[in-house]
Amino acid sequence: MPAYATNMRLKFPILALMLEVVTIVLYALLVVYDTGDAHGDGSHEESNTTHSSVFQDVHVMIFIGFGFLMTFLKRYGFSSVGINLLLAAFGLQWGLLLQNIWHMHNGKITINIEKMINADFSTATVLISFGAVLGKTSPVQLLIMTLLEITTFCINEHLVVGVLGVSDVGASMTIHAFGAYFGLAVARVLYRPGLRNGHENEGSVYHSDLFAMIGTVYLWMFWPSFNSAIAEPGDPQLRAVINTYFSLAACALAAYATSSLVEKKGKLDMVHIQNATLAGGVAVGTCADMDIQPFGAMVIGITAGVISTVGFKFLTPILASKLGIQDTCGVHNLHGMPGILGGLAGIVAAALGKKENVTATYQACGLASSLGFALVGGLITGLIMKIPFWGQPPDQNCFDDSIFWEVPEEEEENEDSAQNQLTSQIKRASPTLLKIKVLHDAIEEPFCLNGSIKNL
Amino acid sequence: MPAYATNMRLKFPILALMLEVVTIVLYALLVVYDTGDAHGDGSHEESNTTHSSVFQDVHVMIFIGFGFLMTFLKRYGFSSVGINLLLAAFGLQWGLLLQNIWHMHNGKITINIEKMINADFSTATVLISFGAVLGKTSPVQLLIMTLLEITTFCINEHLVVGVLGVSDVGASMTIHAFGAYFGLAVARVLYRPGLRNGHENEGSVYHSDLFAMIGTVYLWMFWPSFNSAIAEPGDPQLRAVINTYFSLAACALAAYATSSLVEKKGKLDMVHIQNATLAGGVAVGTCADMDIQPFGAMVIGITAGVISTVGFKFLTPILASKLGIQDTCGVHNLHGMPGILGGLAGIVAAALGKKENVTATYQACGLASSLGFALVGGLITGLIMKIPFWGQPPDQNCFDDSIFWEVPEEEEENEDSAQNQLTSQIKRASPTLLKIKVLHDAIEEPFCLNGSIKNL
Amino acid sequence: MPAYATNMRLKFPILALMLEVVTIVLYALLVVYDTGDAHGDGSHEESNTTHSSVFQDVHVMIFIGFGFLMTFLKRYGFSSVGINLLLAAFGLQWGLLLQNIWHMHNGKITINIEKMINADFSTATVLISFGAVLGKTSPVQLLIMTLLEITTFCINEHLVVGVLGVSDVGASMTIHAFGAYFGLAVARVLYRPGLRNGHENEGSVYHSDLFAMIGTVYLWMFWPSFNSAIAEPGDPQLRAVINTYFSLAACALAAYATSSLVEKKGKLDMVHIQNATLAGGVAVGTCADMDIQPFGAMVIGITAGVISTVGFKFLTPILASKLGIQDTCGVHNLHGMPGILGGLAGIVAAALGKKENVTATYQACGLASSLGFALVGGLITGLIMKIPFWGQPPDQNCFDDSIFWEVPEEEEENEDSAQNQLTSQIKRASPTLLKIKVLHDAIEEPFCLNGSIKNL
Repeated sequence: MPAYATNMRLKFPILALMLEVVTIVLYALLVVYDTGDAHGDGSHEESNTTHSSVFQDVHVMIFIGFGFLMTFLKRYGFSSVGINLLLAAFGLQWGLLLQNIWHMHNGKITINIEKMINADFSTATVLISFGAVLGKTSPVQLLIMTLLEITTFCINEHLVVGVLGVSDVGASMTIHAFGAYFGLAVARVLYRPGLRNGHENEGSVYHSDLFAMIGTVYLWMFWPSFNSAIAEPGDPQLRAVINTYFSLAACALAAYATSSLVEKKGKLDMVHIQNATLAGGVAVGTCADMDIQPFGAMVIGITAGVISTVGFKFLTPILASKLGIQDTCGVHNLHGMPGILGGLAGIVAAALGKKENVTATYQACGLASSLGFALVGGLITGLIMKIPFWGQPPDQNCFDDSIFWEVPEEEEENEDSAQNQLTSQIKRASPTLLKIKVLHDAIEEPFCLNGSIKNL
Repeated sequence: MPAYATNMRLKFPILALMLEVVTIVLYALLVVYDTGDAHGDGSHEESNTTHSSVFQDVHVMIFIGFGFLMTFLKRYGFSSVGINLLLAAFGLQWGLLLQNIWHMHNGKITINIEKMINADFSTATVLISFGAVLGKTSPVQLLIMTLLEITTFCINEHLVVGVLGVSDVGASMTIHAFGAYFGLAVARVLYRPGLRNGHENEGSVYHSDLFAMIGTVYLWMFWPSFNSAIAEPGDPQLRAVINTYFSLAACALAAYATSSLVEKKGKLDMVHIQNATLAGGVAVGTCADMDIQPFGAMVIGITAGVISTVGFKFLTPILASKLGIQDTCGVHNLHGMPGILGGLAGIVAAALGKKENVTATYQACGLASSLGFALVGGLITGLIMKIPFWGQPPDQNCFDDSIFWEVPEEEEENEDSAQNQLTSQIKRASPTLLKIKVLHDAIEEPFCLNGSIKNL
Repeated sequence: MPAYATNMRLKFPILALMLEVVTIVLYALLVVYDTGDAHGDGSHEESNTTHSSVFQDVHVMIFIGFGFLMTFLKRYGFSSVGINLLLAAFGLQWGLLLQNIWHMHNGKITINIEKMINADFSTATVLISFGAVLGKTSPVQLLIMTLLEITTFCINEHLVVGVLGVSDVGASMTIHAFGAYFGLAVARVLYRPGLRNGHENEGSVYHSDLFAMIGTVYLWMFWPSFNSAIAEPGDPQLRAVINTYFSLAACALAAYATSSLVEKKGKLDMVHIQNATLAGGVAVGTCADMDIQPFGAMVIGITAGVISTVGFKFLTPILASKLGIQDTCGVHNLHGMPGILGGLAGIVAAALGKKENVTATYQACGLASSLGFALVGGLITGLIMKIPFWGQPPDQNCFDDSIFWEVPEEEEENEDSAQNQLTSQIKRASPTLLKIKVLHDAIEEPFCLNGSIKNL
């Protein structure tokens, strides 16, 4: 077997269909609709109605937000939005199973809208980690990561939220920090010395940056729904919406200001705008439903915006060169550090009594547990993903859709199509250059005109 | 009159304004707000509130979903998203009139949010058919198709759902199968032998495929709202959301797996991902609100994903070469076959007693009626559209916005602009090539350098 | 100091952070959650639930709608969507403060979802004005405009709606006409004679027009939410949704028809489709919640569509050449004239008694006040923005992201990168042109033609 067995024809379909068939069997055995009305008072229907618009917002964040955010790479848009859809589509089925395995009634898992929101949430961890290894992994590797990461996430979430009763309504710790450090651990194991000096495809083009902004803006807009989706209805939910709204607004100003400050000539950098403007949503997550007041949320947001932008500028290159962590999308800056900031803010808020029945100690345990599970889980997952059989692309094919996708010919930059393009360009440009071509063709063999020209 | 009278200057504005003026007159005579509260218990207001977020989801599917899904063609994006808007904007006005002509109170049609959702639905049939003839028709032809198709749709829907009481909550039969076979019948009548061997513009470029993914992902995300929009509130609506969510998730895995399996080298094909991932939403439509359990929905989804992908790969070329049906977007694979699958699943579910008051016989009649109206209506509509006066583009201008749109010069691929482009490219590239141009200009007249070169 | 001090490194971050810090201090002093339930009957919670999906729709219009609508320019997409986000993020914080300074309880402003919707609304004025000066201003100038325009808007809105009790539910007068004429006044003060004959970057390319259509379609779809967001729940809100839906549908037909009518060869123009299709939403704003019946809304829509398209074709060039008003996005045609039309329609509707407690006289005062505040405020703001210190770009760098943004190299159209591009194109096209280059290189020195080529 060669080191790079990147032909997916059998291994990918077999793995994908096998996972889906196993999932269907488990659903046939375990999963039913939540159509009973336990309280007999209509609260059940009301709850589903209330949740349905929030559910759609979260759905948009998962599939459009994360998907398009990663299309910034010039030749990796198909994979970004396409594999994002694949992983999330599998992840939500798997997540719903594992999240509810702890709460079965009569041996059955009952599904309602709230559980579908939580299933969407569980996929976010994978999509965050996907950002760390973007461009350097095969669809097979990523399906394996999805399976293992969601499993790890569900265990940690059950421990932190279910057992310890830690408050993490917007999931700064259990999703963002977890997903980031899990992905960074995987990226560490999959370290590629050959990409030390960068890769020609590891950058954006003008329109790919605009596609990425679709993702950014949707995440930015709907983050209030993300952070409030599973908050207690009423005042806590309202607080979660308001805090997130203002944290993000303050964070945007901070990200723009810092981006201009750290770039020579004071120009804005799209990488910062696409990512650091969102750090306020991450960082306010844990205490989104707490009584921190709008200005408190804004302080968290402005801090996150500065930290995140500075991270992109100065920390990401150091992580790559010193620690061997090649973090394609900079998830450490968008989800990692802001996630920890969110966890710390939650500890402080708990200590200040901003939410009932929440203690700083347990909050700290929740943060530690999330980081621990992420790092250990990520390392083990990375080792499994490193097995050469899974079709990891060779260095020179990284950040390039064409290794796993049929890509339209025109823009495929191989010699043939480039020549065709130029030839037809020249044809159209007649007479300016066509005659040069005629001249050239005439002299091509034996590449001299005659005595005189030969002497050139 | 020439065979191709493609100048739209009078015929298009006259037709469009005439249709709009007639519509306004009919609205002035017939249509009023549904502002009375028939039950006097507030249920009226509650219904509008409940429907309003679903309404927006459906609206997004119609205008963003269908519109951008069709932007995959490299030079037909303006028409895809622009004409989609035009047809839907007229179609919803016309559809609302005809759908409610059967249910007038005191000679008036009363409008509420639910009726606006249904009006949006009626336009979906046209947008599906649009996909079959995409790139080969004029805006005038398409407005005529909109008028006739929505009229036919409303008759069939009234017969199937209103008279026979067939259950088709997600409209697998009455919208998807209907729209697909109507469009295929039109495409058959408008068969173009000149396009037998393809057309240079009938393909995508890298970024047009990404624009199309915006459409795909929105359709995928909001399909649960589409299938549940007019379901009975409460358990049936919840089931419709859950079944569609899981059918689509399973379908996505199946489409990815099958795409890799049927392509040489196991690569993924964007055409499959853009379309076949959605087949699960179509196929689960008829029995979305029935008690088929989540795993039942997943079985339907996985089947639809496989059938649809295989259809794109193997059936579409055969339809074109053997039956003279040139189906630009492959609506047969996304809406046709999955729509029939949905109808069949509904028959089976009815036979198994999955919904009260629904019988397999009537369900089968509903499917037959939808297909019959579609084929006959499509053939007649196609014949009317074939009249040369409506500005059908000649073969060589197919799949090209520039015949009906002002297109920005830079990328217009005519000789002049290409020459300008190249000249300015050369100017900027000085001195590498500019001197060659100087050399060339010097030798251009009399196109010889001297005795020796003259002999070339 | 040079006339064009476009390096933003210090002035932009300082201004942005200063504004944010001042805002946070004011929030710490004045702003709290609206978590009390004044009526003790749950109406408070219900109100927030009802508003939350409308809030997201408005949010999408502000950030995606306005942002992407302006990406039509070929080299100004980063600024369009990026600076749109910056201005709206600051504007909503500032707007919420000023809008509620008139209605404090116990010295505090209480925030709920409805007030966040209104804060989003206040930013729309700035984003409309941004369209008039798009491409010709620096981020610093635009932050100053945001501060001053929202302040002016809040005074006028308080006077018109709060004091005079004018009815303007969809804000045709107080937002659209106000924002347009404010922006036009600023544009007049910032008149650039050097751009009299256009600018090579002041146009679109194929894909930038498609990005702009994302903005158009989202604005078109969610406008019913915009016009109904702050309407009285129940019948008035339902009327606002219905009227806007039908006004936009009729307007779309009119815009398409007129676009084809005024263009030679009857082709459609993307500028008209992107903008004039939306004029119906603007024009029906003031009387959206009034009892004008669907056909009345359609008459307003069709009128707006015609006026707006004709304005783009004939009026915009005259404004630029005769009045020195260079209106980049044509906001006069989308927001200005349709806004006035909306105000006039409101006066007529009030005179006809279509809404209780509304008089034609007060409506007329509302329109006059909005126009007056806009023109005077805009002129003063323009004069302040004209101070050279704020980094206004020189004429030759207008409509070009690269003056304030890091732009990916490939597409940066400077001599160096163009040369690299062409060289690598030629390399790939070997042997067609590479040998010409070899030939050229060989003859380059001494590069002259004479007797024989040898002496070149």
